Formats: sequence, structure tokens, C-alpha cells
Amino acid sequence: MAFLDSQYLLSNATACRLYEMVADMPLIDYHNHLSPEEIVERRVFNNLAEAWLESDHYKWRAMRWVGEDESVITGDAEPWDKFLAWARTVPRTLRNPLYTWTHLELRRYFGINLLLNEQTAREIWDEANRQLSTMTCVEMMTRFRVVLAGTTDDPADDLEHHSRIAQSGTPVRVVPTFRPDRCYNLQHDPTAWNTWVGRLETVSGGTITQLDDLLSALAQRHQCFVEHGARASDHSLAAIPDARPDHVLAAEAVTYLKRGDIPSVEARDALTMVILHHVGRLNHATDWAMQLHLGPLRNTNTSLYENFGPDAGADSMGDERQGLGLRRLLDGLNQAGHLPRVILYNV
Amino acid sequence: MAFLDSQYLLSNATACRLYEMVADMPLIDYHNHLSPEEIVERRVFNNLAEAWLESDHYKWRAMRWVGEDESVITGDAEPWDKFLAWARTVPRTLRNPLYTWTHLELRRYFGINLLLNEQTAREIWDEANRQLSTMTCVEMMTRFRVVLAGTTDDPADDLEHHSRIAQSGTPVRVVPTFRPDRCYNLQHDPTAWNTWVGRLETVSGGTITQLDDLLSALAQRHQCFVEHGARASDHSLAAIPDARPDHVLAAEAVTYLKRGDIPSVEARDALTMVILHHVGRLNHATDWAMQLHLGPLRNTNTSLYENFGPDAGADSMGDERQGLGLRRLLDGLNQAGHLPRVILYNV
Amino acid sequence: MAFLDSQYLLSNATACRLYEMVADMPLIDYHNHLSPEEIVERRVFNNLAEAWLESDHYKWRAMRWVGEDESVITGDAEPWDKFLAWARTVPRTLRNPLYTWTHLELRRYFGINLLLNEQTAREIWDEANRQLSTMTCVEMMTRFRVVLAGTTDDPADDLEHHSRIAQSGTPVRVVPTFRPDRCYNLQHDPTAWNTWVGRLETVSGGTITQLDDLLSALAQRHQCFVEHGARASDHSLAAIPDARPDHVLAAEAVTYLKRGDIPSVEARDALTMVILHHVGRLNHATDWAMQLHLGPLRNTNTSLYENFGPDAGADSMGDERQGLGLRRLLDGLNQAGHLPRVILYNV
Repeated sequence: MAFLDSQYLLSNATACRLYEMVADMPLIDYHNHLSPEEIVERRVFNNLAEAWLESDHYKWRAMRWVGEDESVITGDAEPWDKFLAWARTVPRTLRNPLYTWTHLELRRYFGINLLLNEQTAREIWDEANRQLSTMTCVEMMTRFRVVLAGTTDDPADDLEHHSRIAQSGTPVRVVPTFRPDRCYNLQHDPTAWNTWVGRLETVSGGTITQLDDLLSALAQRHQCFVEHGARASDHSLAAIPDARPDHVLAAEAVTYLKRGDIPSVEARDALTMVILHHVGRLNHATDWAMQLHLGPLRNTNTSLYENFGPDAGADSMGDERQGLGLRRLLDGLNQAGHLPRVILYNV
Repeated sequence: MAFLDSQYLLSNATACRLYEMVADMPLIDYHNHLSPEEIVERRVFNNLAEAWLESDHYKWRAMRWVGEDESVITGDAEPWDKFLAWARTVPRTLRNPLYTWTHLELRRYFGINLLLNEQTAREIWDEANRQLSTMTCVEMMTRFRVVLAGTTDDPADDLEHHSRIAQSGTPVRVVPTFRPDRCYNLQHDPTAWNTWVGRLETVSGGTITQLDDLLSALAQRHQCFVEHGARASDHSLAAIPDARPDHVLAAEAVTYLKRGDIPSVEARDALTMVILHHVGRLNHATDWAMQLHLGPLRNTNTSLYENFGPDAGADSMGDERQGLGLRRLLDGLNQAGHLPRVILYNV
Repeated sequence: MAFLDSQYLLSNATACRLYEMVADMPLIDYHNHLSPEEIVERRVFNNLAEAWLESDHYKWRAMRWVGEDESVITGDAEPWDKFLAWARTVPRTLRNPLYTWTHLELRRYFGINLLLNEQTAREIWDEANRQLSTMTCVEMMTRFRVVLAGTTDDPADDLEHHSRIAQSGTPVRVVPTFRPDRCYNLQHDPTAWNTWVGRLETVSGGTITQLDDLLSALAQRHQCFVEHGARASDHSLAAIPDARPDHVLAAEAVTYLKRGDIPSVEARDALTMVILHHVGRLNHATDWAMQLHLGPLRNTNTSLYENFGPDAGADSMGDERQGLGLRRLLDGLNQAGHLPRVILYNV
């Protein structure tokens, strides 16, 4: 078996047969981080550095591992220099999925069968850029049988781009996904939390002064997402707190945050659980799925976070315990009669 | 190698040789949940649904996974309909031990070499039921060389069935196992705890008003279990608390529970540790083994628990940390000079 | 493939090729527990019991597993009886690294190709002792291409032996490693902590009455270790606390300990973090590596600890969570601009 040949990773005849049965099926890509704006604008990438390195923090991280300078990672180096740095990095990612993904994309998207390294970088760059210049991002998706793409969207987003995509005759169905993470994950940072609440007020057209206002605004946005075709919510936490969805404590958390204070751990956990229950109930009523991805320690490098923001390539696997909190949420939703379908990832 | 052939799961010659050396040995089944009442009554099962589906919550759980209705799981559907639901479920349990166990039992107990599914269900049902009609549960055990079976029994049980088994000339030795779980695992539910204490008072013939009474009653029952041939205690906890066996705190827990209040976490943990130390000491004195099975989150589905009770098929693997609590207990028993032999399971 | 043949553990051609490339390289053994005193004295072992069983608590532990009496483990039995007890134990350690290590050492150090057991014990004993009588511990190291050995040393050690080794023309470079574990790991035992602080005062020539004195003394010893060629610090904890390096709380911990009281958990965690940050900063300034080995539950058998002390063979794998504390330390050091190179072990 050769690297990336037709039976790559398929270790026996049953595996091959199973793969054959699904190989030509259309792709329903319900969890991704594609930009609705780029889709509606039918962005054409100027070069492979733009397509690969503009926002892929997994690649950034690998480049840092091997000692590349930040200027060719998130800095203002020339696209070619960034690509060359990545080409230098690739041979050292052997056994990491990045190695497989990189060459799979070169073969399937561009018909390039070379292994990427410093020597082949120029030839791959020229050929890939030539092909990229005549292919929009939407054509990329249709070429690989993507029929539905679910983007990731904040309740405070106005979904304007999704409206335009729907009206534009885009041959891929693009739907938003409801991700209210900021509502619970920013509770340690009242300023950022209030900025987010301000955006939510703007888009929902009301004033949010207490917990009930917040829940109403989220319900209104959930309904707007329904109207734009959304089928799922999405929640990322290090761990679900093993706490009751106590409305009194959650209301206290909102009061603290509104006046710029950090709530107690108990109040923050209660607000998290109230929001998760609230969205679970809305999901159940609209037959949405609830995606829970648990585990990651995010933004573990504070210096990088302060310079660059989130998703800079400094997330890590966490080892928080998951059992009690997950039981608390799923059992609570089930008892209340509104447990939605759940997709559970451990990251 | 074919499914369930004579070398099934044996991957090399050494494994085969090791298996041959033990294959014909008698079975000492020291941990099971057989009913002493059914043994003394020499129950004959009317059909395979009774034998397989009356109380096996692992099978129930698999049936729920594939969407069977509760009426054919724990409800009042006809035995044949329950069996047919199980037959529909079996092919979808491939790679789960249930698949292996089901077919192993069909082959070894009934000489039936078919794979169970909807099409074979009727033929298997008829043949198995024909054989079951002439075989008592005790004959099942002797046929498979079971020479000793240790049942699971509450200290509040009167062991009447065990006395009758001993007097009945049953060809399998049946001994009780001392499982005082209710004493610590019901501390969040004072009503249930006091009901259990009431039963313990009845069977031990004394009044339990404080910790010392409780410890005396347990010691008396432990001695009664000794007289019925018991060789082990059995303890199931999500995790052993990392707490001292503090008698003052444990006494406080008993006082709270007796008056219907839930003790503090500290007091509950202390009572748990006092009981585990107490039973450990008794075990050491009588040369019993102490079975600790740690890990499970039990009764994770409150609705099912309220409708049906415990052991309904809604237990789960937990991820509590085990190290510190386990060290605390084993080291404490060792320091006090009465560490019994220990069988440790992680569930 | 035969046991311990030239391709042992090498499962394919690439593995063999990789091994060939490193097989003849010199050994830089930067983490061991060799005694600097024995090195400077060029100790000759009288017999294999001295060499193998005098302080190897992994072997002791295996001997306890199989039921050997403490007299032949840490007691005052004759060397031959201790060796014979180990010989009885070895066949039962199959699949444990002890089995491999034992036979690897017999082959490579002594050219003895027998498997050790009760029958071969005498022959191996005689031959190994014959060879040992003409070989110093330093010759053992040079014979196996050890060019550098990093011992493990307390900041309170005076490094006198290291000075003598450096002056003695020893053909192996021997450097100390800075291991300040007692400073944070003895906080539950003020008497032992103060004894250690007393030794630190003696060797550093100052008085330690408060946190700043302690930090100064450690910095002075760190510099002394630099002068003796040290290249790394070494830290063993069950888990790094998820706590800030709060100087006020840490100072409180020192105050409590100095007057013989056990500090609060918060104060102890703060002192631990202050010390780890302090040493991290010193390591960064001197380009040392920081070894963190996390995970073990140490001294789990209190009776053995009280009779024998630490490192008696009663450590265990822990299951404390590591993520948050490790992030806290590494991120904190990075933010402060003095993150040293780190070697991370999970034990």
C-alpha cells in the first residue's frame, strides 16, 4: 500500500467495501468555519498561501513547533515566504494529520502528486496558483460534491451574508449554525461580555438589562436562524459545569456582568447551565441538533492571545472530567421533556 | 479463524495452550446477581425472553440505542414480542460483547449455531424454549461446571433463601456476598436511607439511633453472613472519597439522616469512609476478600429511575479520579493492621 | 525474533535502520540517581546484590508482589539470600520492564546469556561477582560510552563530592541537577521542612526567616550549581497547582512553616508556584532546562514510609488532572519572558 493510494488507511477487504459504498456520496459539511462573506463574494484566492495559511491555526502551530519566525506565520511576510516556511515545515509533520491533509488536498484539488518540501515548493506554488486563479471558493465546493455547508455564527450576527447567499443562486446550500459561546465563555471578562451583549441588543432590537431579556433575545435570534435554514447549535466548553440551571444565581451573574463585575464561580456556572438548557429547549422545539464539543483548553498562550486574539494556534487538549456535568445537562433536558438530538465531540 | 470457533480470541499458540489448561476447570463464580430465591425454587424459565430479558439491563440499553419502544423493553408486551425486538437489535450490536455473549450462549447452552436476527428468531425461540422447558436454573449451572456461586446480598436481607438452599441439597454451593452500599450511597435521600435502616433493625433485632448502633448492626450481620458461608464483601462507588474516617463527622451524618436531613458532603464522606474501614476490619478478621468496583455513574437517567428504579440500563462509565481516595482507604486499612485481600474493578 | 536478539523491539526495517544510526552514539544520561560519593570513591561492588538490590525500589516492589519477606527486600538478610529472592521473582516479572532490564544487563554488562531463576542463580552470582570484583562503577560507565551523567541534588547539598569528582580526572563528566522539591513537597510537615531549611541556611551561609530569604538562598545555590556545571533543574509533583504565584500568600506559607504550623492549601499552592516561577526564571537566565515530572502518588504506604522513609517502592501512578496547572505555569513563565526549555514527563 502506497501513501495516499486508493486503499490508503483501509486495512482489509471489508473496509474497502464500506469505503466504496460512501465514496461517491454528496458531502453534508455541517460543521466548518467557512466565511459566509467569502462565499457570497465568490472569493478567488490569489495564491496557495492565502488559501492555506490565512487562518489555519493548525498549520501555524506546526510552523511554531519547528521554529519558524512569527513574521512568516501570522506576520506581514510576503505570501511566497509564508508558503516556503510551510513547505519547510511539512516534511517534519510526518505522522501528523497535517501531512496527510496537505498531500490529499494537493492530489484531489489540484492533481499534484508531489510531496511538498523546500525543493518542490516553487513548482507546486506555480501550478496551484495557476489553477486557483480560475476557481472560486464555491466552485471548489461543488467540484467536491458539497451540497450543504453549515457555517459557525454568533447569535449577534445579523446573517446578512446568509440572506444574500440564499438570494444569489449559489449551487451549495449554506446555512448558519447558532453558537452562543460568548454568552458563557466571556463571563471572566465583563468588558468583552458587555460588548457582545451590545451587539446582541442591536441585532435583536431590544434592551438587555437582566437574565430574562437575555433569554428573550437569544430566543428571537434562534428563530431568525431557523428562518435562515439553521439546523443546529454549537457549544464549546472545557467542561460542562456540574451545576443546576439556577435562575436566581444566573440572574445574579447577569447583574454582576452588566455593572462590570466578575460573578462568582457558582453564579457563572448557573448562567452557563441556564443558557445551555434554554438553547436545548429551543433546539428540541425546532428539531435542531445540539453540538457539544468539550475538552479543549483554549488560548493557553496569553501573550499570543493579547497580541493576536483567539484561534491563534495555542489551544490544547484539556483533561477536565466530563462525566458529571454532561450527565447533569443531558439528564436535566430529558427530565424536562426537551432533550434535542445531540452530537458529542471530545476535542 | 471463524466467529466463535474453538480458537476464537486466541491469537497465538501460547494463548491456545493457556486456554486448554483452564478450559475444563470448574467455575467459581464469586460475583453475580443470581436470585437465591430462584435457585431454591429451582426455577424453570418458560421461554428465552424470561431467561434473557427479564432483568438484563445491558440488553435493554442496546434495545433503546436502536430505538425499540419501552413497551418491549421493560413494559408489558408479550414475551415473543420482546424477544423479537431483541432479535432485531442483535445484528446491530456487532463488536459489542452482547453480540458475542448472545451467540456463545446459544451455542454452548442450547447447541444452536444460528446467528440471531429477525429471520432466525422464530426457529431459535422454538428450539430454545423446548430445551428450557426441561431444565431448571440449577441444572444450567451444574451443566457448565459451576461449583460455587456468590450472590449479591444486602446486610438487611435475612438470608432465609440461603438457609433453604443449604438445606436442600443443591449441587452447587451458593453463598451470600455482603454488600452494604445502601448505607453510604443513599445518603442524599434520607427517606430511602431510613427505610433501609428500618429493615436492618428488623433483621438485626436492635434499635439504630446513632453511628455505633449502625456499626454494631453491620458487624452482627457480617457474622451472620459468615455463618452462611460468605467469603467477600462488595462495594460499588463512583469513587472512594479522599477523606478521613472521622467518627465525629460520621456520627453527625447519622444524626442528620435519622431526622430526615441531608448531611454535609464532609459528613457523608466521613460516614462512607467509616463504613468502608469497619467492613475492611471485619473482612480482615474473617479472611474475606473486599471487592471494590469503582467508576460507574449510576442512574444517569432520572426519568427512567423514577419510573423504574435502579438497574434500568442507564448507568455510565464515570471519569472521577480514583487515585487519592483509593490510597486513603487501602493505606488506612494497612496502617491499622487490618487490610483484607482486595479485588479491585474499574467499571 | 528471539528475546533480546539484535532486532529486539524493532518491528520493521525502518526501525532497524533508525536504531543502527544511534546504536554507537555516546550516552548523555542527564537524569539518574547515581551517587556522586560512590563515583568519587570509585566504588567496587562486592556482589550483584549490592549492585542491583541496595536501592532499586522497582525490584523491591516486584519482590513484595510475589510475597517475599521484607527481610530479603530491605531487611538485614545475607546478600546471597537477597539475590536468591530476586532470582525467584524474575520469572514472574515477564512482560514487566524489569524482566527485560535484568537480562539486558546480564548480557551487555557481563556477557551472561542465561535467564535468571532459582536454578541459574548460583552460576550467575559467581560469574557476575567475579567480574564485579575487578570493575569500578566509573569503569562501568566508560565501558558503555557514558560521557555525561547528571546526578540529582538538593539545593541544600554542598556539592563537595562534585568538586572532588571534577578535580579527580574522572573520565566521565558528572554534573549536579538542581532539585528543590523539599521546599514545596514538605509543606505538610513543618518539622521536616525546617530541618531542610536549616541545611539550606548552613550551605548558603545566611538566615532564612521569610520568603525573600528563601528565594535568595535558592538563587545563590542555583549559581553554585552553575559553577559545578549543572544544566537543569528537576521537579516532581503529583500535579502543578492551578494557582497564581502570589507572593503575599507564599510569604504567609513561609511564616506558618517557620513557626511550625501547616499553611492553608491556598498558601501552600502559592508557595509552590512562587518557587517554580523563581527557578524557571533562574533557569531561563542560565539557559538550563526545567524537568517537570508530574503524576506520581508518592509514599502511598504510610507504614513503610514510617519504617523506611521515601523511595521504598510504594509510589503509584496518580490520576490527578494536569492541564490547568501546567498551563498556568508555562503560560505564566512565557508571559514574564523567562520560559526556559522544558522537559515534561508524565510518570
